[in-house]
Amino acid sequence: MFEINDNYLKLPGSYLFSTIGKKVNAFTQANPDKPIIRLGIGDVTLPLCPKVIEALHSAVDEMADASTFKGYAPDLGYEFLRSAIANQDYRARGVEIEIDEIFISDGAKSDSGNIGDIFSVNNKIAVCDPVYPVYVDTNAMSGRTGEYMAKEERWSNVIYMPCLEENNFAPKLPSETPDMIYLCFPNNPTGSTISKEELQKWVDFANEKGAVIIYDAAYEAYISQENVPHSIYECQGAKTCAIELRSFSKNAGFTGTRLGFTVIPKELKSGDVALNSLWARRHGTKFNGAPYIIQKAGEAVYTEEGQAQVKEQVAYYMNNAKVIREGLADAGFRVSGGVDAPYIWLKTPDNMTSWEFFDYLLERANVVGTPGSGFGPSGEGYFRLTAFGTYENTLAAIERIKNIK
Amino acid sequence: MFEINDNYLKLPGSYLFSTIGKKVNAFTQANPDKPIIRLGIGDVTLPLCPKVIEALHSAVDEMADASTFKGYAPDLGYEFLRSAIANQDYRARGVEIEIDEIFISDGAKSDSGNIGDIFSVNNKIAVCDPVYPVYVDTNAMSGRTGEYMAKEERWSNVIYMPCLEENNFAPKLPSETPDMIYLCFPNNPTGSTISKEELQKWVDFANEKGAVIIYDAAYEAYISQENVPHSIYECQGAKTCAIELRSFSKNAGFTGTRLGFTVIPKELKSGDVALNSLWARRHGTKFNGAPYIIQKAGEAVYTEEGQAQVKEQVAYYMNNAKVIREGLADAGFRVSGGVDAPYIWLKTPDNMTSWEFFDYLLERANVVGTPGSGFGPSGEGYFRLTAFGTYENTLAAIERIKNIK
Repeated sequence: MFEINDNYLKLPGSYLFSTIGKKVNAFTQANPDKPIIRLGIGDVTLPLCPKVIEALHSAVDEMADASTFKGYAPDLGYEFLRSAIANQDYRARGVEIEIDEIFISDGAKSDSGNIGDIFSVNNKIAVCDPVYPVYVDTNAMSGRTGEYMAKEERWSNVIYMPCLEENNFAPKLPSETPDMIYLCFPNNPTGSTISKEELQKWVDFANEKGAVIIYDAAYEAYISQENVPHSIYECQGAKTCAIELRSFSKNAGFTGTRLGFTVIPKELKSGDVALNSLWARRHGTKFNGAPYIIQKAGEAVYTEEGQAQVKEQVAYYMNNAKVIREGLADAGFRVSGGVDAPYIWLKTPDNMTSWEFFDYLLERANVVGTPGSGFGPSGEGYFRLTAFGTYENTLAAIERIKNIK
Repeated sequence: MFEINDNYLKLPGSYLFSTIGKKVNAFTQANPDKPIIRLGIGDVTLPLCPKVIEALHSAVDEMADASTFKGYAPDLGYEFLRSAIANQDYRARGVEIEIDEIFISDGAKSDSGNIGDIFSVNNKIAVCDPVYPVYVDTNAMSGRTGEYMAKEERWSNVIYMPCLEENNFAPKLPSETPDMIYLCFPNNPTGSTISKEELQKWVDFANEKGAVIIYDAAYEAYISQENVPHSIYECQGAKTCAIELRSFSKNAGFTGTRLGFTVIPKELKSGDVALNSLWARRHGTKFNGAPYIIQKAGEAVYTEEGQAQVKEQVAYYMNNAKVIREGLADAGFRVSGGVDAPYIWLKTPDNMTSWEFFDYLLERANVVGTPGSGFGPSGEGYFRLTAFGTYENTLAAIERIKNIK
């Protein structure tokens, strides 16, 4: 008689964004005359830039002709894309990453979930609180998190690192020693960042304790300040302790196009075993490459024109972030983030819970955001708005919110 | 101190096709004047059909315009594609599959590896021998296969079902009771199929024993004979015991375009728990959908024009299969497969091992095939050729092989 993986049964409720989707659908059905503005899920609204569109069309044409048709891709991804990444994301910042340390994938969400496969289920994880739910849920699915304690809204075998206002929403080094540390900077959901010196402390801590850092840099394109690292490998010694996840979703609008990559330096080892070779084995056995035409689209992002065009998109969203941040501050909200990140993190007014404020905003302003508590107990009393809407909708949403204040 | 998943260390050697790639590269470097014909890896050579190309261009244009741009896809896949599948792959064969029983993915390789996530590591698997290596390797990675016994080339905790000549290369019901049974028909690598009545016996066996069948139907488009089932759900009672995997790689040439789907009927349960909901949770947490433009390409396969065009491609490859099968039979080889499948399975001559014959064919005919022993010990003494080359190359390869005989 087959048995299921009963770790799945321990998972509480359903996935945050599904719940929001259901609430919004119910509202829209009951109020068809009230147009909703969505600043909730971190999905982009600008179309793919012209250079990417051109590359897609051209790659589609290649697939139409036997002499240029592409079948199975190389396991790690096409070299043209891995070379562009090595040169422009790393070498240009003074970091040497070899192309066989780069693994092309269908996105950072898959990678951040799948990376757990190569680690023991006995490892203890440390996560920020609040946190992107995928890190915790995927570890729960593989049995690494202990039991779920519904009252505390926490797992028994996870080290939570509260990210609170007094610390600029950045975590402190934990007193208990973790085996795997999930960090995401610029942060989702709080929009916070840390300086290179602060990140260096994490690298040193990990190397000292023999921990591995899973560093999610999906939002690096939004960094505007000097001295905020774009890659963890800008820190000394990071190659012996860190895996970096990158995405094309937010820097180039690939949320529905799907492309990402993971960097695993060969120096990162457990005893004699290089994690690079374990991930190569997983990649070659459980994955068959991102589509050729999508990898060509990714390559286009790295061209001169492509870079100019995607930077324009990032600037557009960061202008939205400014509108939200300044508009809400004017209206008396306590806001953070939105400077090096497309997320604005705000304190709910009048001691409302995050979900109370979600309902309040939905009903009174017809604006959808994301309840901070959905990202962990320390997110309670906070709320996330994203800068990924259109400029017009973002302006309108802030006006609506100001008017209910 | 973090630990790795040491199940990975138990995996023998490297992945079959990587080894072949290395041998072929070494040969080509040493013999740049000898052009290789590849009938080894099951990769297609015909370009995508015109209707699919048209859909891709059109979807790319949608991504270029804010009013039609698509961000994150629905977790399970777009309804337009799931509806087409439900209607044409299932309803047209008298099988009712609901659209929320269909999960769109980036391909059957990912799905066949990832499906293990929702099952207990204590389950005992049964696989055909020879077998597509991904089923076994991914179970080994999750710790379900026991220890690897190098001498026997088998895992200690796997039920192997030999597929031998005397049984037309189909497995017999195992005497030991498995929890999970991997079946693939039309079969990779042997090219064998079984009748609906024979498949019904497996369904009845699984229902009686409480086992689940992972049914890989990636090659169903190649079925030419009546009474060979295209879907396991054509059998009575399959919905309570079977998961079906499908691919666009071989029926529509999507090996480098990446699209597939998994069907999990809601009736398939462990106690009260529907596997459909577990997979939905995994899909929503560890995956972010196949690209919109690729899903539109998949939809085009189901149009009337698309169907006519992909059927022409399948006919082209099946003509190659005939050329190989009949040519080798004429030359005195013992061959099977190639009637309902794009694979021809041949007995190596003169008691050569599979790898000896691989080297012999590479050196003497400059033709690349796949050693049967790479698919399991019962594949020793056999060799796989694929019909996915061009017609011209296929003809030339068979001539070359005939000439060394």
